[in-house]
Amino acid sequence: MTQLPAILSRLDADLDASLTRLCSWLEIPSISTDSAYAADSRRGFTAGLRETPGHPIVLGHRPKPGAPHVLFYGHYDVQPVDPLELWDTKPFEPVVKEIEPGRKVIVARGACDDKGQVMTFVEAMRATLAETGDLPIGVTVMVEGEEESGSLNLPAFVRENAEELKADFALVCDTGMWDRQTPAITASLRGMVYQEVTITCADRDLHSGLFGGAAANPVHVLAKIVAALHDEDGRITLPGFYDGVEEPTNQQKADWADLNLTEEEFLGQIGLKHSVGEKGRMLIEQIQSRPTCDVNGIWGGYTGEGTKTVIAGKASAKVSFRLVGNQDPDTIATAFQAFVREQLPADVTAQFIAHGASPAIAVPVDSPALRKAQVALTEEWGRKAVTIGSGGSVPVVGDFKRLLGMDTLLVGFGLDDDRVHSPNEKYDLSSFHKGQRSWARILQALATKGA
Amino acid sequence: MTQLPAILSRLDADLDASLTRLCSWLEIPSISTDSAYAADSRRGFTAGLRETPGHPIVLGHRPKPGAPHVLFYGHYDVQPVDPLELWDTKPFEPVVKEIEPGRKVIVARGACDDKGQVMTFVEAMRATLAETGDLPIGVTVMVEGEEESGSLNLPAFVRENAEELKADFALVCDTGMWDRQTPAITASLRGMVYQEVTITCADRDLHSGLFGGAAANPVHVLAKIVAALHDEDGRITLPGFYDGVEEPTNQQKADWADLNLTEEEFLGQIGLKHSVGEKGRMLIEQIQSRPTCDVNGIWGGYTGEGTKTVIAGKASAKVSFRLVGNQDPDTIATAFQAFVREQLPADVTAQFIAHGASPAIAVPVDSPALRKAQVALTEEWGRKAVTIGSGGSVPVVGDFKRLLGMDTLLVGFGLDDDRVHSPNEKYDLSSFHKGQRSWARILQALATKGA
Repeated sequence: MTQLPAILSRLDADLDASLTRLCSWLEIPSISTDSAYAADSRRGFTAGLRETPGHPIVLGHRPKPGAPHVLFYGHYDVQPVDPLELWDTKPFEPVVKEIEPGRKVIVARGACDDKGQVMTFVEAMRATLAETGDLPIGVTVMVEGEEESGSLNLPAFVRENAEELKADFALVCDTGMWDRQTPAITASLRGMVYQEVTITCADRDLHSGLFGGAAANPVHVLAKIVAALHDEDGRITLPGFYDGVEEPTNQQKADWADLNLTEEEFLGQIGLKHSVGEKGRMLIEQIQSRPTCDVNGIWGGYTGEGTKTVIAGKASAKVSFRLVGNQDPDTIATAFQAFVREQLPADVTAQFIAHGASPAIAVPVDSPALRKAQVALTEEWGRKAVTIGSGGSVPVVGDFKRLLGMDTLLVGFGLDDDRVHSPNEKYDLSSFHKGQRSWARILQALATKGA
Repeated sequence: MTQLPAILSRLDADLDASLTRLCSWLEIPSISTDSAYAADSRRGFTAGLRETPGHPIVLGHRPKPGAPHVLFYGHYDVQPVDPLELWDTKPFEPVVKEIEPGRKVIVARGACDDKGQVMTFVEAMRATLAETGDLPIGVTVMVEGEEESGSLNLPAFVRENAEELKADFALVCDTGMWDRQTPAITASLRGMVYQEVTITCADRDLHSGLFGGAAANPVHVLAKIVAALHDEDGRITLPGFYDGVEEPTNQQKADWADLNLTEEEFLGQIGLKHSVGEKGRMLIEQIQSRPTCDVNGIWGGYTGEGTKTVIAGKASAKVSFRLVGNQDPDTIATAFQAFVREQLPADVTAQFIAHGASPAIAVPVDSPALRKAQVALTEEWGRKAVTIGSGGSVPVVGDFKRLLGMDTLLVGFGLDDDRVHSPNEKYDLSSFHKGQRSWARILQALATKGA
């Protein structure tokens, strides 16, 4: 631990260089594939590309006999960039901008999710190695390329390489802080069911002047189904949907109340003022610990400029459910399909594409590793690190638990206004810099003895 | 009239040549603009292009002092061709196909709507001129290029050129037959209100894992609005929507019953069996004389392959209403906007684009011209020509009445399975050929004296 001040000083001095390294990575448009990147911090690592049926996985090991060993997970793929016209700068030409006095951000697709986050850990290792010639614990780094498309090939890879990947616990840097000043450890993650549904009526597109008034319109059918997914209180109407959802304890409610998250503060940043979530639930509960349903996309008929008096033959929607507690993804996928089919008029059919189904995950909130990380984060940020639930999904955490019996520690430096998955995604320079420093502290802390 | 047999024989002999002329026209992709076409039957016509603020109008005159004068109207623009992948052949490379033994069709965008239909009239004039050196009546031909986008510039053109365009009555060939054996004169046309609505929630696209459960989703809002447009009986729910809609007389109901249009027959051709129209109304009433509402297009969020866990900032729909009787288009457009706004949650806004509003139109069913045309059609087809209502809109008919005080005679040879506005649009060769012969008969009939 006595070497920590030198490591932190080195991170401070090296910030510009680390930023250059991050930008080089951000310039790679790894939306769907990117085998160009290989872990750039190879010193002492046996690292390389590992093929999967999809995009390859970057994997590197640096064992340290007698010390704890961690598996660090991140992903190099990024979300699609459309709608491109809403970007102020090009998504794969990273720029550093001062968005308010003293607050600089890195703008690019992947700046936060997940390249910027991954690099906080890589830079912490780099500085530690440079300063001390060693890492305090053994580390395996695994960076995959399919997280944004459901990590379809990862479970098989983990299963087939269980011996090689098994560690004392996993570290994931793909989550957020509580706010810009308050670090956080994520202790629960929502699961997900993602379904695509196509409603088919006539066997072709129709002229509304000829068939309007008689022929079923798939946009109308689909709209009725979407409208029926929530009741007037914002609850999801699928039969059995809330099975396995636990009510919060009074202590949990009190903790949430302490955080005092207001609609004005949380939604104000995106131009809204009022939550449309479940009535009778606190905002923080709605976004962190309750299951949700959102239509992520809808399309059908004529969508170009001007007019076309068409009744479409088909209309489609992408519908996702965020799961919590013990909700069963397969049961919910089945319930959704039944829900749709029950609402189809005569003649009308529905086809489904299943885009993935993963359960919610809770990580232990009382592990020694979590407590050590909490102390390290609190020291770096000068504010007590809080444990939070996340609305998002990181399916790999469930894979690690199920396939390797391994828990995960989720520490990340994203902010709610990072625009991840949106145009003008950014990562605060303070997240990037203090994130590096946080990991340097955590690496040292995890090497210490004691529970 | 004694020259009619020779004219008809000439049309028979000239069919292949006329088909070649039609195909040359169909090869011009006049979706949005086409100033290349000029009336190809100039003999004795003073013809040329007339500019408008939009696409030019082809206008030709062949006066005949002492005889009746008619204004023939058609349009050279066609509907967009998407989705292109559903076309069996290229939309602007016309082909003649035998779709069942003895039944040939011309396949191309515009084959029916409206190039094929226009050419039935042009070829009838051509043969009459070739055979007799003259036309039996005076004719003005006007072919515009903006019908499929609402004829925005036509009313001003008609108003500014009223003296030049005024005729005893207008002829329009842009409607259909009752069925493949039974010719029809269209005696009423539905009007139209076409609105595009965009729902805006957050000021950007959001990550559903961060904001799902709290942030308003414009796809959900839009779906609820679309779902609310019809009640469970298929009636449109806009307040006051049915004001000005008259109930049919008992005679009208009896006439409809005689036509015996079944759901199986009418909807069977498009792969459906059941009407979803207004309960308690006959099918023919639903499609011809009742007002309707159809969403012609809807879009929002991620619509590409795979998944994106996004909550869109905006979602849009194109919504059209077909009007009948004395429904007022402006009142209905206003009612629609109010209906949308009333259903918006807090924070959520709606923006509208008005794509046009035209009232329904009825043409006199007892005019001498209509009766003469009815006799001529009956002679050509060997079945009594029926008078029908049309679900479609031909706004120019209203312009002629309002601006020139001129009635219109609507005769066309389209069939319900012509796939107008859809992929693989076609025109039966029998429509094309017997359509020419029909117009040759009508031209002669209109020259005769007597009511």
